[in-house]
Amino acid sequence: MVTTSSFVISLVFSSSCLVVLFGVYVFTSRRPGNAVIYHPLRVLRGEDPGIILKGRGPFSWAFDAWKATESDLVDAAGLDATVYLHLFHAALQIIVLSAAYCIPVLVALSASNSYNTKQEKTDVRVTRFSGFDNLSMGNVEPGSPKIWGFLIGMFWVSFVTYFILLRSYRRIIDLRVRRLRRSAKARPEEFTVLVKDIPKPPANQTQAEHVDSFFRMVHPVSYARCIIVKDLRKLENLFKEREKVLRELEHAEAVFEQSKKKESGDGVRPMHKTGFKGCWGPKVDTIDFLENRSSHLTTQFEEERKRVQLTEKSNTAFVIFNNRRSAAQASQVVHGHQQPYWTVVPAPEPNECVWRNLHVSEWEHWFRKLLIHIPTFLIIVAYGIPILLVAGLLSLHNLEDILPFIKAITRNKAIHDILQSDDSEDSAPSSLVNGDLSQAKSGTSTGRQGLLPQIVLLIFLALPPTLMFALSRAEGFASRSRIVRSASAKYFYIIIFNVYFGVTIFGTIFSNLSSIKGMVEEDKFLIARLIRLLGSQLPPVAMYYITYIALKACIGYGVELSRLISLISYHWNRKFKVQTEWEKRESWAPGAFTYHQSIPNDLLILTLALCYAVIAPMILVFTFLYFLLGWTVQRNQALNVHVPDWESNGSLWPHIHHRILAALLAAQITAIAYFAVKEFVWTPILLLLPFLTLLFHVYCNRKFRPLIEHVSLHMATEEYPVQPTTSAIVEAYTPIYLRADSPGIDRRDSSERIPSDRIFKLDPSPSAASAV
Amino acid sequence: MVTTSSFVISLVFSSSCLVVLFGVYVFTSRRPGNAVIYHPLRVLRGEDPGIILKGRGPFSWAFDAWKATESDLVDAAGLDATVYLHLFHAALQIIVLSAAYCIPVLVALSASNSYNTKQEKTDVRVTRFSGFDNLSMGNVEPGSPKIWGFLIGMFWVSFVTYFILLRSYRRIIDLRVRRLRRSAKARPEEFTVLVKDIPKPPANQTQAEHVDSFFRMVHPVSYARCIIVKDLRKLENLFKEREKVLRELEHAEAVFEQSKKKESGDGVRPMHKTGFKGCWGPKVDTIDFLENRSSHLTTQFEEERKRVQLTEKSNTAFVIFNNRRSAAQASQVVHGHQQPYWTVVPAPEPNECVWRNLHVSEWEHWFRKLLIHIPTFLIIVAYGIPILLVAGLLSLHNLEDILPFIKAITRNKAIHDILQSDDSEDSAPSSLVNGDLSQAKSGTSTGRQGLLPQIVLLIFLALPPTLMFALSRAEGFASRSRIVRSASAKYFYIIIFNVYFGVTIFGTIFSNLSSIKGMVEEDKFLIARLIRLLGSQLPPVAMYYITYIALKACIGYGVELSRLISLISYHWNRKFKVQTEWEKRESWAPGAFTYHQSIPNDLLILTLALCYAVIAPMILVFTFLYFLLGWTVQRNQALNVHVPDWESNGSLWPHIHHRILAALLAAQITAIAYFAVKEFVWTPILLLLPFLTLLFHVYCNRKFRPLIEHVSLHMATEEYPVQPTTSAIVEAYTPIYLRADSPGIDRRDSSERIPSDRIFKLDPSPSAASAV
Repeated sequence: MVTTSSFVISLVFSSSCLVVLFGVYVFTSRRPGNAVIYHPLRVLRGEDPGIILKGRGPFSWAFDAWKATESDLVDAAGLDATVYLHLFHAALQIIVLSAAYCIPVLVALSASNSYNTKQEKTDVRVTRFSGFDNLSMGNVEPGSPKIWGFLIGMFWVSFVTYFILLRSYRRIIDLRVRRLRRSAKARPEEFTVLVKDIPKPPANQTQAEHVDSFFRMVHPVSYARCIIVKDLRKLENLFKEREKVLRELEHAEAVFEQSKKKESGDGVRPMHKTGFKGCWGPKVDTIDFLENRSSHLTTQFEEERKRVQLTEKSNTAFVIFNNRRSAAQASQVVHGHQQPYWTVVPAPEPNECVWRNLHVSEWEHWFRKLLIHIPTFLIIVAYGIPILLVAGLLSLHNLEDILPFIKAITRNKAIHDILQSDDSEDSAPSSLVNGDLSQAKSGTSTGRQGLLPQIVLLIFLALPPTLMFALSRAEGFASRSRIVRSASAKYFYIIIFNVYFGVTIFGTIFSNLSSIKGMVEEDKFLIARLIRLLGSQLPPVAMYYITYIALKACIGYGVELSRLISLISYHWNRKFKVQTEWEKRESWAPGAFTYHQSIPNDLLILTLALCYAVIAPMILVFTFLYFLLGWTVQRNQALNVHVPDWESNGSLWPHIHHRILAALLAAQITAIAYFAVKEFVWTPILLLLPFLTLLFHVYCNRKFRPLIEHVSLHMATEEYPVQPTTSAIVEAYTPIYLRADSPGIDRRDSSERIPSDRIFKLDPSPSAASAV
Repeated sequence: MVTTSSFVISLVFSSSCLVVLFGVYVFTSRRPGNAVIYHPLRVLRGEDPGIILKGRGPFSWAFDAWKATESDLVDAAGLDATVYLHLFHAALQIIVLSAAYCIPVLVALSASNSYNTKQEKTDVRVTRFSGFDNLSMGNVEPGSPKIWGFLIGMFWVSFVTYFILLRSYRRIIDLRVRRLRRSAKARPEEFTVLVKDIPKPPANQTQAEHVDSFFRMVHPVSYARCIIVKDLRKLENLFKEREKVLRELEHAEAVFEQSKKKESGDGVRPMHKTGFKGCWGPKVDTIDFLENRSSHLTTQFEEERKRVQLTEKSNTAFVIFNNRRSAAQASQVVHGHQQPYWTVVPAPEPNECVWRNLHVSEWEHWFRKLLIHIPTFLIIVAYGIPILLVAGLLSLHNLEDILPFIKAITRNKAIHDILQSDDSEDSAPSSLVNGDLSQAKSGTSTGRQGLLPQIVLLIFLALPPTLMFALSRAEGFASRSRIVRSASAKYFYIIIFNVYFGVTIFGTIFSNLSSIKGMVEEDKFLIARLIRLLGSQLPPVAMYYITYIALKACIGYGVELSRLISLISYHWNRKFKVQTEWEKRESWAPGAFTYHQSIPNDLLILTLALCYAVIAPMILVFTFLYFLLGWTVQRNQALNVHVPDWESNGSLWPHIHHRILAALLAAQITAIAYFAVKEFVWTPILLLLPFLTLLFHVYCNRKFRPLIEHVSLHMATEEYPVQPTTSAIVEAYTPIYLRADSPGIDRRDSSERIPSDRIFKLDPSPSAASAV
């Protein structure tokens, strides 16, 4: 059948992509010159590229990734990366345990039926059930007692998920406690709290004196010092711009030096046009222009710095204590007896601070969050439109009309199948009003199994993370991990809405538009009928999702492993652009994990696994392969490639935990709807499950959440051999551009500027993150 | 019209009840012998009854109540009573401000229409609109632009409520801070925290040593002592039973002494039968029997006390600090790094402790709460059934069939109107399927305006609070205020479900059962049509609610003011029962406010006010009178009558606040439904309001909740002139039956036993609460 062949070809295409990308990896990673691309973390730690590559077979990276313990991961990539990798671990456990029941029992139950064949016989138009569809719950006759097996399956999957989530939470808390305990040196954030909403000082006091006197009163013994934080946005912008100009100046000077050598004389002074991107406007001498500009910026910067230092107005401060116990206590306690005054929260790690947001008061932050909901909501809803439009435009029929010459290619049967299966939607008439659902569903599901719309979906869904990150930053979070979590949450909604609901619900509605219109016109539009319509769509869509999962696994993790984009840009930059030492390092800067992009993608696959575990159990095999591949590749990346630029001590886990639970809830509701469609009278038993999930959520939140959000007193009481001095803590909590030795125009040594850059660079794209 | 006359007669009946009860109060409260009934709080403070009653006119109690400031109230009745009275204050403010717009504008808008008259003309069957109905939104024509005025009204009512709730929360926090500051003496609970879920001690330590060593480690300077709390249920039961036997013994001895005097000889030893309530079984000498029994109980009690003191097993302890700051900090901080170990919460006031529940671990408590949801849910749902049945049985027709002789009375027109209006439900045919709703609604609403079903409702709804209290106590709360709040929440659901939903929704459904059945049979059962049916019911039901409010205000607060039941029982007991000093005081024990009964009742009236403020604004007048009467009477009761037996420092306010907000949400949803019924195209604007209410809820919860739940560090740092010693705190947190000087058989002086009784007596009925 067409469907099956298209399905197989799609899988073959995906796996060939993976093989090609793997080939690229094996071939290029063996060249020592590429060590900075494939093992930058180890290069930065000072390991010799020769030793790293010695005696490595094509699969040794995978063995290394398998062998690494969680402690190795924490050491190499930090706790946050370990928590992220635990998502794969938990997903694999959930899938394997679910499959232990679902695949032997439910597949056998499905295969022993012949509802699909029967339908094909009774209705001549039904010809589209693939062999695969016979292994899903769609093949069981409505109202059959065999559905009990599927019902038990749903309970099994739910309890497996609860069990694994419970164990995972315990494990993460354990890792967190171990990490806090194992470090030989106490870290500055353990002595510090962030105080927001400081009331205005009395007339005779400065803000600093005011904070001093209040904290001396309420923490008489343990209070050490405070650092008043001011509005640093302008200063930060000026500093960044000056950095950029200085780097450009360095580059221009290097180009000039180069030209001197080549021309064996005075050399050619580089020139450029001042207009946009150097495209128009008067031509000027680049070095003179940049020197002028940098000295101008330096003056501005120094003036702004003075202004900031003299400003009195501020409602935020870091408060430093002389012991960890007091800081841990202070961060959990209500200080003022009138809110919103003296809100005290744990201080983020110095690297994690978003300096430009620190001055935002609690209520401004709250209001901003509220406002940002509006664009987020619009983007989530609106994002489906271009995807649908582009997918529609790109159907082969239209393409062939526009570009007739490609017909020669697309007429080839195999290529046609890869790009798009038969445009057979039209051939399945909508007969839903009459209650017969099978024809329409098979038509639409096969119609969407072409690869082209899937590739469009993949490309379109790769764009929003950056936008979501910018939106989340605008909400005014004080720490980078909070921004990442918020951006990840937004992207998760987009992706779930467009892939899960978009494909199932909107796909059904659009392809059955005429029958729905008929229902509305006949005034018989009933929710119950719509649910039946959606439910009937579920098992055939599973095949579409399987090709999607395969494509995502092979291309996504193939590109991640081979680092194709980084590799090309590295060699391109190296050849045509790099002039200075700083640019050389920047060209291979590996960046950190982009959690707000990867977590939602991985969660989507887990959502699909949970939702289809019972309805079409074969999906579990493919999701298992996805997570296995992902687990191996990402472990390798954590051990060899990505450089963490902040650490939030596992604060990502509650975020992941809640979304896995939400996915389970979605699966349970889907199951209720589908079991009802199957006319199973015992379906109401399933109503227990959403209730249990809610209960489990409340339980975990009460039991584990405080342990992730706060340092317990027991932990904070333990003694460390080395404690930082108060002045070291103050230094850590002062942004580079406010420090006494802030770099001036005459100190262009790039190595000194990199840490400052690390502190405030928030751009999430991997190439922009800077080297350690 | 019948409706209006029935309505007026109903109001006249209610006000005559009030006048009669007020007369009783004026007459009896002037007799000095009744001072213990009408001014027990002042008598207990040692004021002379003669002085209390000197120069008092019939209304001077009201003037006194008006004049009292909130500080006076806090001094006399404690912060909890003041918070409860603030509910009246807030309700009055909300009603007055809402009425400022609704009564002049909306009543005028309604009265200027003639939709009701038009309907009466076009349809001969419609004859039931009263003049009152013409003042409600029902009289506005569907789709009329005048509905804009009502829409603005809904926004006005919502913003008024937000504003008043915000101000109230601020005020309560202010009162709380002032109360904590003003007391000259620090109270034991300020130095104490309650530690739950203590892990098992290591083999070589007792539980007390274990707690000691842990708290010495995490609070090295400030930890003072711990008190291990054990399972005290059996001990408490034995102690209570022994107390009861001792009191009976005292009584019997007094009777014997009395008989000696009368018979001027040896006297008659009292005898009684040993069976149930002394009704059967062998006759024994009461004094001998009770003496035997009490000595047996004392032995048992002493054995159990020894056993408890030797028991090792316990997971709860009070931990005492040597300063308030440390206790305030400890109660807010995560202690152990593994939940559920070392859960630390603020200690309740010693009088507030529920000793029998203290040993319940956090998770057992959680589980019990979960279990108790089931009977609560069943009771809420099932409670409507007897009310409906009884109201149906008690219709005059049935009564007259059963008891023919009352016909002579009920044939009297006025009495008939009071008890039940014309049984005219049947005369209004259900024509709802045709979309014409007016006939059915007028029929059902007038049919329910008789007083008899209302009285049945009042009586039936007076029963559940005690049951709810027992259920809440079984949930395992450690403090009495939590039990009261939980019971109040449950009763609120019952009352809202039975009065608000019961009357509106079920009344509509039952009275239109045939038309709904028709809809179901014709397969045209649509949610939209049901909502329209319910919506059309709303304005006529308002009149029913007005009579209910009047009845509740007049009888409820009339009985409260006149203390009729206490008065009768006092005089009855005095005459026939009282023999000992203890019984004398018990006979007039005023008890504390029964918040879990009064708060839900008052909140119901506020819910009705908010829901009908826009639809039938005249209800605001009656709710205003209700709250005015309630405010005056309850202030008088707080100043003169009720004796608080515990103090939770205003923890009742969040409970009240949330329920007022929930009432507002109900009002907004009702308005959306009703505006839609009125075919107003701009109704979707109202969808903004539920969203705003949710936002306001989150805002208040974040802003104010922590200040009610915890003592701020700023407060706790202030110095008090007098601090209790550690041993005094230990004494306060030891239940009377575990103290070293626990009363034995030979110490029968009643005055010494009363405080012990106060500590663990949880029976909510006023007569059972003991004197101070």
